[in-house]
Amino acid sequence: MSPSPARVTAVDTHDIRFPTSRELDGSDAMNPDPDYSAAYLVLRTDAADGPEGHGFTFTIGRGNDVQVAAIDALRDHVLGRSVDEICADPGTLFRDLVGDSQLRWLGPEKGVMHMAIGAVVNAVWDLAAKRAGKPLWRLLADAEPEWLAGQVDFRYLSDALTPADALGLLRRGRQGIEARRARLLERGFPAYTTSAGWLGYDDEKLTRLAGQAVADGFRQIKLKVGADLDDDIRRCRVARAVVGPDIRLAVDANQRWDVDEAIRWTKALAEFDPYWIEEPTSPDDILGHAAIRRAVAPVRVATGEHVQNRIVFKQLLQAGALDIVQIDAARVGGVNENLAILLLAAKFGVPVCPHAGGVGLCELVQHLSMFDYLAVSGTTDDRVIEYVDHLHEHFLTPVVIRDGHYTAPTAPGFSAAMRPESIARYTFPGGAFWAADPDTRKGRAA
Amino acid sequence: MSPSPARVTAVDTHDIRFPTSRELDGSDAMNPDPDYSAAYLVLRTDAADGPEGHGFTFTIGRGNDVQVAAIDALRDHVLGRSVDEICADPGTLFRDLVGDSQLRWLGPEKGVMHMAIGAVVNAVWDLAAKRAGKPLWRLLADAEPEWLAGQVDFRYLSDALTPADALGLLRRGRQGIEARRARLLERGFPAYTTSAGWLGYDDEKLTRLAGQAVADGFRQIKLKVGADLDDDIRRCRVARAVVGPDIRLAVDANQRWDVDEAIRWTKALAEFDPYWIEEPTSPDDILGHAAIRRAVAPVRVATGEHVQNRIVFKQLLQAGALDIVQIDAARVGGVNENLAILLLAAKFGVPVCPHAGGVGLCELVQHLSMFDYLAVSGTTDDRVIEYVDHLHEHFLTPVVIRDGHYTAPTAPGFSAAMRPESIARYTFPGGAFWAADPDTRKGRAA
Repeated sequence: MSPSPARVTAVDTHDIRFPTSRELDGSDAMNPDPDYSAAYLVLRTDAADGPEGHGFTFTIGRGNDVQVAAIDALRDHVLGRSVDEICADPGTLFRDLVGDSQLRWLGPEKGVMHMAIGAVVNAVWDLAAKRAGKPLWRLLADAEPEWLAGQVDFRYLSDALTPADALGLLRRGRQGIEARRARLLERGFPAYTTSAGWLGYDDEKLTRLAGQAVADGFRQIKLKVGADLDDDIRRCRVARAVVGPDIRLAVDANQRWDVDEAIRWTKALAEFDPYWIEEPTSPDDILGHAAIRRAVAPVRVATGEHVQNRIVFKQLLQAGALDIVQIDAARVGGVNENLAILLLAAKFGVPVCPHAGGVGLCELVQHLSMFDYLAVSGTTDDRVIEYVDHLHEHFLTPVVIRDGHYTAPTAPGFSAAMRPESIARYTFPGGAFWAADPDTRKGRAA
Repeated sequence: MSPSPARVTAVDTHDIRFPTSRELDGSDAMNPDPDYSAAYLVLRTDAADGPEGHGFTFTIGRGNDVQVAAIDALRDHVLGRSVDEICADPGTLFRDLVGDSQLRWLGPEKGVMHMAIGAVVNAVWDLAAKRAGKPLWRLLADAEPEWLAGQVDFRYLSDALTPADALGLLRRGRQGIEARRARLLERGFPAYTTSAGWLGYDDEKLTRLAGQAVADGFRQIKLKVGADLDDDIRRCRVARAVVGPDIRLAVDANQRWDVDEAIRWTKALAEFDPYWIEEPTSPDDILGHAAIRRAVAPVRVATGEHVQNRIVFKQLLQAGALDIVQIDAARVGGVNENLAILLLAAKFGVPVCPHAGGVGLCELVQHLSMFDYLAVSGTTDDRVIEYVDHLHEHFLTPVVIRDGHYTAPTAPGFSAAMRPESIARYTFPGGAFWAADPDTRKGRAA
């Protein structure tokens, strides 16, 4: 008698918060005091000696409990499912989660519920890659185009991207893939750094960190802007003086402006040759981004970290609203939806430069850019992954940056697993850190 | 010594679910088995003999607990606030809630967190109207244009609607308001009914209910479509035969289609002279709605019940994507954001025909349409409020429909308060109904 096939036996969830607001790390025009957090889940199975699947939503503090509740609400869709089946076809699970007719009302496909779906789907991909003994980028790059195209949910996309389009792009992506893989393993994938540019940093710290970034091999840095124009002009001048004319200097307004203000403010910074203006206005404002892009060229327009799903990315591309697509590994519905977005970007010929930072976003999204290079876009020209040097020490297989490049991960999985001792210490509000914190004891949230 | 000013002392929340899926009430192409639910809150104060403020988010079952958790996450913004201050200026509270820099990450301004904000804001308006001794429609219609314009958050709107635009529209709305108020009190506001048209109903039930609707004085009915074209053709034929050529027959696809399919399907129903096609595709697809509208004219395009915020409504209007704006009282950020949407619709000259039904949506949204008639649009031409005859018995001041019209409410407040015995009986999972239900006891969600 053969043993029963392995099943998912538990979906453990954790509310993990780091007290980053105390150092003003991560401060920008809309997010003055983030406490970088993760609504984290672990898929456990009854496979003998089998791995776990890890996934999470990144948040910035308050509300992380709501995000955990949303992941909990998906538990019944995952418990008891065949591990072989969900790992062989995460796309079916994605469709089941997105298609839950009652939960769908809470979105559809946006905000808290959709990020929860992304966390669960990403945990399945982590599990699948571990079981295949490959880092996720390699699992994806080794996969057949037909199977990959089957992982995409084309609902609401077919006026811009059909299954035949996707298959054509993925077949084209097979050409020359071996040479690109060798190059990736040798050189890595280009990164840029935001570590110098937080709004809360003074000019001395900006000068020191911008200089360090160039010395470390980065060819692009990014400054947060949007709180005060005079400050921004001064900070851009300081940064440009430090890095010289050949390093790209991107600026990021974190949704601070209305359309007309975005145009005026960006033009006021044009003398410092900004490479892109990121999130100039609401991530929901497709037509607004298109108007801004027309007005501020040659400054490029970038957005995506808060773009809720593939349907909005589709329109940003249809409307000619973007020069740069900024995917986020944990905002949309996981790997499957990001696969759709990478294919949309390729169809429209727009480069993908992921958002990262936060908690574990660098760890996740590097896999998607490496897959994009190997099997979709075929190039790293004008492609960079954001890098922020926060909180990597809490991960079992943290990113490795070498000479301004992300090194290709070698450990099987999606690099998503956090250290057990970090989970325990930073669990809110009961973990050792928060339990010892006077503000927590007074009942104040993180 | 004068007494301390009254404060908000509690935000009580309730997970209330009705077992509507057992009758296929509310069944449509995307929502086959909804259990109409409310994530409900009560603002309590220490005002002597003072009223409470009631508000809620409508959901369709699973996930109602997530929605309650989201309302709970807003509690600290409301507790301890001056009742006089929040009632005199709910707009400041709206901005505080939307602007919580950590919670904002979970949207921004969309999905679970934004609906929670809407529930809290609406509860404040309920409290304000009760304290003023007026039904909400009257509180709004009596207010000064300057104060009303100050209740709008123009962020991300200024490229389409400025404060000066809003003030101009509201000042224009004062002209002739007395005559309109008399007419409203005499006649009410036109309604249409969806009660006949649920997908789960057979032709006999459709025939009977459509005939009853006309007999009851409704001049428009609506059918759900989108699951099967042959069925839809048959059901439209049956309905049109019953109601004759002079009653408007709207159809509603509940987001079932991609763009091209929406165009084909709508054209296939054109012989039955549909008045509008509602939610032909994703509520996020502004450009898709515009393409559909161009292709299916003279059939009108309507959407809004799932449109997440004012920014998406702005673009639907800018893109010429809509003939009908369907506001929902509990999807966006409450009265303040709906005020912005009513003003946008007026600016673009597009009629507002609210979504209602669910739990208490009719009770709420009638106030907004009556205000729109009195003080913004100035007309009921081509304006109708959806009416569905579900679950009104659970409300203390249910809607009153007379000869196909909503009668203007007279009780102070926003008509939001549910009967205490209904709250107790349908609280999930511990209320008497659910505790006695075998499926609940087996651990299956509603």
